[in-house]
Amino acid sequence: QMSFIIRSAFAKNRGLWSPVLGAVRTMSSAGDSTSSFTTLSVTRPADSITHVELNRPEKRNAMSRAFWSEMVDCFNEIAVDAECRVVIFSGAGKLFTSGIDLMDMASDILQPEGDDQARVSWNLRRVITKYQETFSVIEKCPKPVIVAVHGPCIGGGVDLITACDIRLCTQDAWFQVKEVDIGLAADVGTLQRLPNVIGSRSLVSELALTARKMYSDEAKSCGLVSRVFPDKEAMMAGALEMAGEIAARSPVAVQGTKINLVYSRDHGVTEGLNYMATWNMSMLQTHDLMKSAQAAIEKKGPKEVIFSKL
Amino acid sequence: QMSFIIRSAFAKNRGLWSPVLGAVRTMSSAGDSTSSFTTLSVTRPADSITHVELNRPEKRNAMSRAFWSEMVDCFNEIAVDAECRVVIFSGAGKLFTSGIDLMDMASDILQPEGDDQARVSWNLRRVITKYQETFSVIEKCPKPVIVAVHGPCIGGGVDLITACDIRLCTQDAWFQVKEVDIGLAADVGTLQRLPNVIGSRSLVSELALTARKMYSDEAKSCGLVSRVFPDKEAMMAGALEMAGEIAARSPVAVQGTKINLVYSRDHGVTEGLNYMATWNMSMLQTHDLMKSAQAAIEKKGPKEVIFSKL
Amino acid sequence: QMSFIIRSAFAKNRGLWSPVLGAVRTMSSAGDSTSSFTTLSVTRPADSITHVELNRPEKRNAMSRAFWSEMVDCFNEIAVDAECRVVIFSGAGKLFTSGIDLMDMASDILQPEGDDQARVSWNLRRVITKYQETFSVIEKCPKPVIVAVHGPCIGGGVDLITACDIRLCTQDAWFQVKEVDIGLAADVGTLQRLPNVIGSRSLVSELALTARKMYSDEAKSCGLVSRVFPDKEAMMAGALEMAGEIAARSPVAVQGTKINLVYSRDHGVTEGLNYMATWNMSMLQTHDLMKSAQAAIEKKGPKEVIFSKL
Amino acid sequence: QMSFIIRSAFAKNRGLWSPVLGAVRTMSSAGDSTSSFTTLSVTRPADSITHVELNRPEKRNAMSRAFWSEMVDCFNEIAVDAECRVVIFSGAGKLFTSGIDLMDMASDILQPEGDDQARVSWNLRRVITKYQETFSVIEKCPKPVIVAVHGPCIGGGVDLITACDIRLCTQDAWFQVKEVDIGLAADVGTLQRLPNVIGSRSLVSELALTARKMYSDEAKSCGLVSRVFPDKEAMMAGALEMAGEIAARSPVAVQGTKINLVYSRDHGVTEGLNYMATWNMSMLQTHDLMKSAQAAIEKKGPKEVIFSKL
Amino acid sequence: QMSFIIRSAFAKNRGLWSPVLGAVRTMSSAGDSTSSFTTLSVTRPADSITHVELNRPEKRNAMSRAFWSEMVDCFNEIAVDAECRVVIFSGAGKLFTSGIDLMDMASDILQPEGDDQARVSWNLRRVITKYQETFSVIEKCPKPVIVAVHGPCIGGGVDLITACDIRLCTQDAWFQVKEVDIGLAADVGTLQRLPNVIGSRSLVSELALTARKMYSDEAKSCGLVSRVFPDKEAMMAGALEMAGEIAARSPVAVQGTKINLVYSRDHGVTEGLNYMATWNMSMLQTHDLMKSAQAAIEKKGPKEVIFSKL
Amino acid sequence: QMSFIIRSAFAKNRGLWSPVLGAVRTMSSAGDSTSSFTTLSVTRPADSITHVELNRPEKRNAMSRAFWSEMVDCFNEIAVDAECRVVIFSGAGKLFTSGIDLMDMASDILQPEGDDQARVSWNLRRVITKYQETFSVIEKCPKPVIVAVHGPCIGGGVDLITACDIRLCTQDAWFQVKEVDIGLAADVGTLQRLPNVIGSRSLVSELALTARKMYSDEAKSCGLVSRVFPDKEAMMAGALEMAGEIAARSPVAVQGTKINLVYSRDHGVTEGLNYMATWNMSMLQTHDLMKSAQAAIEKKGPKEVIFSKL
Repeated sequence: QMSFIIRSAFAKNRGLWSPVLGAVRTMSSAGDSTSSFTTLSVTRPADSITHVELNRPEKRNAMSRAFWSEMVDCFNEIAVDAECRVVIFSGAGKLFTSGIDLMDMASDILQPEGDDQARVSWNLRRVITKYQETFSVIEKCPKPVIVAVHGPCIGGGVDLITACDIRLCTQDAWFQVKEVDIGLAADVGTLQRLPNVIGSRSLVSELALTARKMYSDEAKSCGLVSRVFPDKEAMMAGALEMAGEIAARSPVAVQGTKINLVYSRDHGVTEGLNYMATWNMSMLQTHDLMKSAQAAIEKKGPKEVIFSKL
Repeated sequence: QMSFIIRSAFAKNRGLWSPVLGAVRTMSSAGDSTSSFTTLSVTRPADSITHVELNRPEKRNAMSRAFWSEMVDCFNEIAVDAECRVVIFSGAGKLFTSGIDLMDMASDILQPEGDDQARVSWNLRRVITKYQETFSVIEKCPKPVIVAVHGPCIGGGVDLITACDIRLCTQDAWFQVKEVDIGLAADVGTLQRLPNVIGSRSLVSELALTARKMYSDEAKSCGLVSRVFPDKEAMMAGALEMAGEIAARSPVAVQGTKINLVYSRDHGVTEGLNYMATWNMSMLQTHDLMKSAQAAIEKKGPKEVIFSKL
Repeated sequence: QMSFIIRSAFAKNRGLWSPVLGAVRTMSSAGDSTSSFTTLSVTRPADSITHVELNRPEKRNAMSRAFWSEMVDCFNEIAVDAECRVVIFSGAGKLFTSGIDLMDMASDILQPEGDDQARVSWNLRRVITKYQETFSVIEKCPKPVIVAVHGPCIGGGVDLITACDIRLCTQDAWFQVKEVDIGLAADVGTLQRLPNVIGSRSLVSELALTARKMYSDEAKSCGLVSRVFPDKEAMMAGALEMAGEIAARSPVAVQGTKINLVYSRDHGVTEGLNYMATWNMSMLQTHDLMKSAQAAIEKKGPKEVIFSKL
Repeated sequence: QMSFIIRSAFAKNRGLWSPVLGAVRTMSSAGDSTSSFTTLSVTRPADSITHVELNRPEKRNAMSRAFWSEMVDCFNEIAVDAECRVVIFSGAGKLFTSGIDLMDMASDILQPEGDDQARVSWNLRRVITKYQETFSVIEKCPKPVIVAVHGPCIGGGVDLITACDIRLCTQDAWFQVKEVDIGLAADVGTLQRLPNVIGSRSLVSELALTARKMYSDEAKSCGLVSRVFPDKEAMMAGALEMAGEIAARSPVAVQGTKINLVYSRDHGVTEGLNYMATWNMSMLQTHDLMKSAQAAIEKKGPKEVIFSKL
Repeated sequence: QMSFIIRSAFAKNRGLWSPVLGAVRTMSSAGDSTSSFTTLSVTRPADSITHVELNRPEKRNAMSRAFWSEMVDCFNEIAVDAECRVVIFSGAGKLFTSGIDLMDMASDILQPEGDDQARVSWNLRRVITKYQETFSVIEKCPKPVIVAVHGPCIGGGVDLITACDIRLCTQDAWFQVKEVDIGLAADVGTLQRLPNVIGSRSLVSELALTARKMYSDEAKSCGLVSRVFPDKEAMMAGALEMAGEIAARSPVAVQGTKINLVYSRDHGVTEGLNYMATWNMSMLQTHDLMKSAQAAIEKKGPKEVIFSKL
Repeated sequence: QMSFIIRSAFAKNRGLWSPVLGAVRTMSSAGDSTSSFTTLSVTRPADSITHVELNRPEKRNAMSRAFWSEMVDCFNEIAVDAECRVVIFSGAGKLFTSGIDLMDMASDILQPEGDDQARVSWNLRRVITKYQETFSVIEKCPKPVIVAVHGPCIGGGVDLITACDIRLCTQDAWFQVKEVDIGLAADVGTLQRLPNVIGSRSLVSELALTARKMYSDEAKSCGLVSRVFPDKEAMMAGALEMAGEIAARSPVAVQGTKINLVYSRDHGVTEGLNYMATWNMSMLQTHDLMKSAQAAIEKKGPKEVIFSKL
């Protein structure tokens, strides 16, 4: 089914993708994933685009113990994979994710070890810090990550998507900051990132304190997602088209943009400008600048320029 | 009239509130407020919910000298009141507040004491800092505060509501950052908190520099309020329902969520995650987590679980 | 044509502006600009209002080498010009700006000097820092700056407008973070300021990574601009009206508001409140406060009060 | 005995203090302390100088529950006492302090209340925060505090003295960061302030991790104290002389200096300069500046100038 | 030879160490190191004490490519090794370290890969960040690290020791911030940590800008080291004694102290106190507190108390 | 006399400086200064070394109005002067400086303009900010500045020297934070920079609050200066020797070191390391690295290597 969606995506893109399409078909026949992850499927639907899929559909893509460490390995690999310029993240099956797999993780969280109270706390802190890293790797990875959500996105799912760069969803998607319902304050990123992601703090507080569901319309109007699509097929096509736009541009420009956007979020404007100037004192010397300038003069689009790998 | 509204609120909530309703009625007959404040009325409309009302309707709820210190006492009490899990703040009478009571406060601001210029300034700074504390206590109080605005909310009123967690208003509400009209830069919180509260800086600047009124529709679309209700009765019912949702959840989770949301606003994401991990290393050990998990398995809602006081 | 627009603006303002109108007419007949800038036109359409126009219409208002340094001189002059209380910034001719003038600036950016790699980088950093200052002066200037955009606003244009305080645009305006298309990460302010300016980070990332155009409707709904006007004439009238509102208010209040809004953006709330209290310990002693209070009692508007220059 | 020391102090100061001396003698005969504190004695040994003495000599000046709250009241009073321009803090009896009174405080720390782990932690955090405030009030009080240490200064004593502005000690004084010996990380200020107070981090770590004693010589050479005196009498005389020097100067200058030194410790230099400029824009207008300038021209010392109270 | 030194250390410690001594002797006979590192030797000279030795004496302990990654593995292991409570770090052979092994690392630094200037820079940044991590792991490891320096400590050696907690050296030790001599600004920690470590910025600048040698006397007086010993044998004995003191204390207290000292260095005092309170709300509940209190009452030293592992 | 001192300096340096000496002599005969400053003399005593002398000996080098703006021009020129790699700053005549020239500056400070209190304050803030810039330019200039102090260094002199990189003084030098004596808190840098410069906060507070003199011995032991010389001649020779050492090294390394030392002072270690890595990703590609490495292999010192200008 997924391969059909991807095919549609290319079909809609007016032939531009046709050479890529062949490659995808080949990859698909050779099996979807070249990786050995058990909770993630990693494929290359088109040149320079990596597709990471949360792949436990039979468990509603719940986040198991394996998931938390596989994410770190997966994104650390992507971070240094010169063949990848942009990542699409989505969920396999009928929904995005039902959040943390409480059964599988109960021992970590509900029965932490330690000889006394302080030692139990010490170990819990180590666990939480490890789990936080699971989503922080998305942010540390310099390649932009487009996340595409369909159906429910619950609890840990919201932590995950707030660490991505661009958020898309389907009409039937809904989002729920569920943690307060199970007696804990969200501790792997939602409380830190959501207020930066959407424009209304009143809404952030309401969502985090009441655990109510937010549907796609509200998610669009508050800025959580930047686009809503009628269904998953259309969304994946849209995600691929957007990924294609990004992948076609200079990776020096694209990845420098992500790194500086993340840096600026956590620093004042003066700090951000200073860092940016120090960053670009070398990055402006890329050949990509001249190639792009020349293409612009020749009225060519970025997809007609060949940039070196990064 | 207020008691009628509260009754309606419960009536609309499909019987869920009926046991609580009796308690409220009793409280009302015994007098609205158990406190000795002259500018605030403090009641308990339902279990674990404290209702603080700005109560100088004959003065358009203007903020008098007494108000500025009573707020500090009131919220410091609430902060350690284990019976209270969530606060609703509203204005008595026909409007929310007309802002600072210039007549009453003239001596503090217009005729500050001091033997020379530096000493006058020194005393003024002490006064401003004290006034800032009036609204900062709302933020330091770990219980979430829902503010419900009807009619005008002017000057100091905007400072007040930006320090609350969730903002609701009626269709006829309007907001005005009035300070520039009386020759001063807003100094008790609006300039600091409003840009965090709504998503458009261009709008913040326009409001603060021109003192124009913003009506409920725009307040909703820019994210200042998260919901607009047709009238005060409906709003108070909505506030009570929302407060009920929050009060029913684990206070460890709810108050930890507020504390970390406030912390994250003023710190970068990395800082926020570190603080969160250190916070939750003990808070995750609450029995509320197990109780909530069990309730979830048994398909019970949070209102069916009994959590210890905090 | 511009003078016609300005006349219309005053005409629409119900006679309020009529004395000012004469002054403008005189200025216009005496030549639009009293300054000696080659890329900027600086006029005074009304009392206390300075109009800075990006004035290279034959070059689509592209930002040439001269522009980058003239902006610094221009806004440094405005910063200490007691006759100016508010600034309107717009573009002459058919569009706002096509962004950086690559041809004119190629030597700075594409052929930087230096004996080895480190020295080239060193010089580039000096250039970037100088260019950043071009827009930072807008922010450092204590007078509010209203920017009015019509038609395309591309690349450096977005850097420029995000450093202004209030953003208006026409129905036919569009915005494009173009830098990624020419192989570089935007380095003179967009990546630092845009995320503070609009409410949705997902949208910021999308715009900066794909270089897609954003039209006026979306610009309004995401908060980039606070108002959209049908055409340039209406927009300039609106800008003048808004500028008039601001210019009529106490400059101590207005400029203190801008300075503290900028300060608060880059600091936590506690820091911002401390700075504000220290700021106002002297500023509250302005006579403007008493004048404004008295006017309010006498039901006069701010335009009927005479404030000293600042 | 103390009054003898004070007398000596004045005697040594070449007659300068003689008028003051009479006042002190009177105060002494009227009883040492005008306050109602049980753990602190507060006197006025000379004009504008407040002497706070840790006054439980029979308990080795151990810090009891009463002490922790009396300190807050005491320094909050001093902060707004216009008669006080400088504070001397010392210990009554044979030593400065043996630190926390574990017996008296056991219930707070060793048997905190709470229905489950999270609630116990919650209450402990409230207690720690309250105890931290005990020493932070010294820092928030704008009057400079000179602390004079004789004999042992253990545990909480080190937390206390690091919050003071100037540290003096006797030859027989020694200092011990004792907390690690009773199984806890020092949590009321030592770990935060000591590294700012002395120049060698290696030494800070050694002291905090091994709980070894540091004697007066090392305390002087590492910068913990700025002067060592042969005995308590000489130290008290020295403290009074230094306090006299400070009290004789403009309180606007002195207290502004303290406030900005504390501010600068926690902020970068750019931040500190901005705050300082905003501070002094009003404080420079004090008459003290002109009085001091005139005195300088007339070759008078600060003690010959009368400054208004602050 | 090393085992002789260790024996002496124990011999000097008045029999206290005798049971431990046996264990050490056994370890020594079984080979010094249980690890598989090629540049580091890791042993356990006494209970709870880990000794890490820079072990390329034939290469003057120069830091090779292997060293940079082995350090990360080594300290990550130590961080979670419950048997280790304190670390001693020293150099094998005749000197501490001659710094970076330029020959071995030339390819990384002198011939970085990349298709154009920007890509070479990108890769270099990755390399530098990786090297920085080599010393940052020392800081992130919660166990205190005592570093013992004999003979030259050059270049990268200074980066290394500034990341340790306590610094000791021999009379013949000298330190040299060598980087400026090979044409680069020190980039793996010296410029960031040295100014926090010693008290005089003038001296820091002089050392970093002139690359002059600093001998042990000056190192002691400026606070770089906290103790100087006549020779390596005495120093190792001293290090072991100090390590024994630390290892005997509650690991909850010791490691909490280190974590909060590091945190406080990079944050203001208010921030540090908030973090400390949140940290100790759980850590104060350790049984170690009660055990220590009881031991104190019974006049026992910390070495007579058994604390659980952490 | 000065030229004699310089001659001596070179004489002592064993012939190394002889070719340079000729150049100096020529410069001297042609007049000491090529600049048109009235309060500063700017010369080049040796290749790549700029000597800036505070040159109003007849006025005890008091800081007049001209001085405050000439400093900015002077150091802005030096910042981009590729011929200069290091700066020596000293005072002409019998002492370093008596501080601010109150007579000359009285109008700025004692009689500021403005129609009301707020406007006077506003103008004062502008003046203070301008004066702060006078010393901040020293810090922003990437060339290291060695300051050599003889005799008194009072008030503004301390502000000045704390902004320099390396401080030397003569035996007869003394330092006085004088501001509190004329009724103001030091506002052009001392309160911000002195606590970073010396290791003991107790001493900083004592100096700033009592305005007592500190002599050269104490200045050395507390770390304010890193070396004390018997007299001015010896000091100038020492300064020239040290400047020669610095000037001989790679300017990429030297200036990068200064920039990162200043950056690190105001940022945490993690921030500093990130900035450093971003800085060196281009700076490591300098040819100076290879030249230095080669020189090291050939046992040549830095003075035998020719580095390109920067």
